[in-house]
Amino acid sequence: MVLVSPRNPLNIGAVARAMANFGFADLTVVAPYEPHWREARSAVGAPDLLKNAREFPTLSEAVRDCTLVIGTGTLTHRKPEQQVVRLNESSQFLNPELDGGGRVAIVFGPEKHGLTREDLSYCHVFVEIPTDPQQPSMNLGQAAAVCLYELRVRLATDPHHPGPRRQVQAAEHTSSPTSGNLDILAELIEQVMVVAHYSPKTMQAANRHDLRLMLRRLHFDAADIRRALGLFRRILWRFRHTRP
Amino acid sequence: MVLVSPRNPLNIGAVARAMANFGFADLTVVAPYEPHWREARSAVGAPDLLKNAREFPTLSEAVRDCTLVIGTGTLTHRKPEQQVVRLNESSQFLNPELDGGGRVAIVFGPEKHGLTREDLSYCHVFVEIPTDPQQPSMNLGQAAAVCLYELRVRLATDPHHPGPRRQVQAAEHTSSPTSGNLDILAELIEQVMVVAHYSPKTMQAANRHDLRLMLRRLHFDAADIRRALGLFRRILWRFRHTRP
Repeated sequence: MVLVSPRNPLNIGAVARAMANFGFADLTVVAPYEPHWREARSAVGAPDLLKNAREFPTLSEAVRDCTLVIGTGTLTHRKPEQQVVRLNESSQFLNPELDGGGRVAIVFGPEKHGLTREDLSYCHVFVEIPTDPQQPSMNLGQAAAVCLYELRVRLATDPHHPGPRRQVQAAEHTSSPTSGNLDILAELIEQVMVVAHYSPKTMQAANRHDLRLMLRRLHFDAADIRRALGLFRRILWRFRHTRP
Repeated sequence: MVLVSPRNPLNIGAVARAMANFGFADLTVVAPYEPHWREARSAVGAPDLLKNAREFPTLSEAVRDCTLVIGTGTLTHRKPEQQVVRLNESSQFLNPELDGGGRVAIVFGPEKHGLTREDLSYCHVFVEIPTDPQQPSMNLGQAAAVCLYELRVRLATDPHHPGPRRQVQAAEHTSSPTSGNLDILAELIEQVMVVAHYSPKTMQAANRHDLRLMLRRLHFDAADIRRALGLFRRILWRFRHTRP
């Protein structure tokens, strides 16, 4: 479970409580508002998972070792660029990934506006919470409770799953590449684009964004990524050694 | 949606928000703590459903016109006397009832201890939220969100259901008796028990409790109840007119 820039300490506490209620243990926080984050962590009765939460400055770093990153939210005011799945149908993605020993992250945005387009470019899939169009915006703690309930129930009813704690297994067992490896590949391809004068400098940010999304849309396995890294490193090396 | 003696105005607000998020409109409150209830209702931005909420002194009165009353909670520290269904399997009860035009109430207890044994005697079924035994107790607003999500999703995926708003239909269309009619029958049977010296006076409260539960466990239809009412009224009349 990853929270991007949460503000309200009550909401952070509520998310931690819902995690404990449904048996999840790994909480990661990205660029939290420090005073509130300290307050939430040091609250009387704060569960251990809140005290043990990891903290990262960027979402990219937070999900580096994950093989499936799930963005959450509603579709109002948002048109995700990746596949959208309704929460109640999300087990079709999760179960094969967990069966393969993958590590799944579910990501929630800040209270005010949810995940940004930039945040979502690190997500393989967007999970839609099916709220009423007249009142789509959920409270963070409640949205987390609903998602964790659904994951707990869908994983628990599958006899092959001992439970959601399974997700903490090492990513080495899976054939899916980690988010960190996709980022390394994306950076390499970007360097190749620059060196090859593939596109004007003004397009660099847009290309980077599209690249991130594309790499997550394609179902690479870990070996594909190794091959692609090898190829683009080679291309880059050739460029740098053959051009004046 | 029925809240029994809610305390925290933030929780009341959170329940109202979750109802709006998942398209439910009818909120009823039983014996609320008045200052907090007033505060929650008059909060800036309180949704209409909170302002329009109905208020009753007892649960019995609150669910009088309902044909299916669902108690909620976890099984820790509690052994319900009626059938227990896991939340993710609760649509088996709800859908036939709503198909028959019935009116369903879902009942949440106070924050501190949940529904009492007395509260539960008005419930046909107990819906268990499948939380982790190590941290079973959910926040009220989050528990409501999880239940309403499940109802919304299960009702919405059934093509025969236009949505949860269906529940506001009048109870006359259904064959299930209302909770109020069951109470009238229970009271009549109790009078018969007393007049017939069926059991000592000290057992009266226990008998009343068991009777309420039994009448909700048996699947009477409305016609059964009319027949039973006629029979017990007749018995009572005979007792009163033949005994000295």
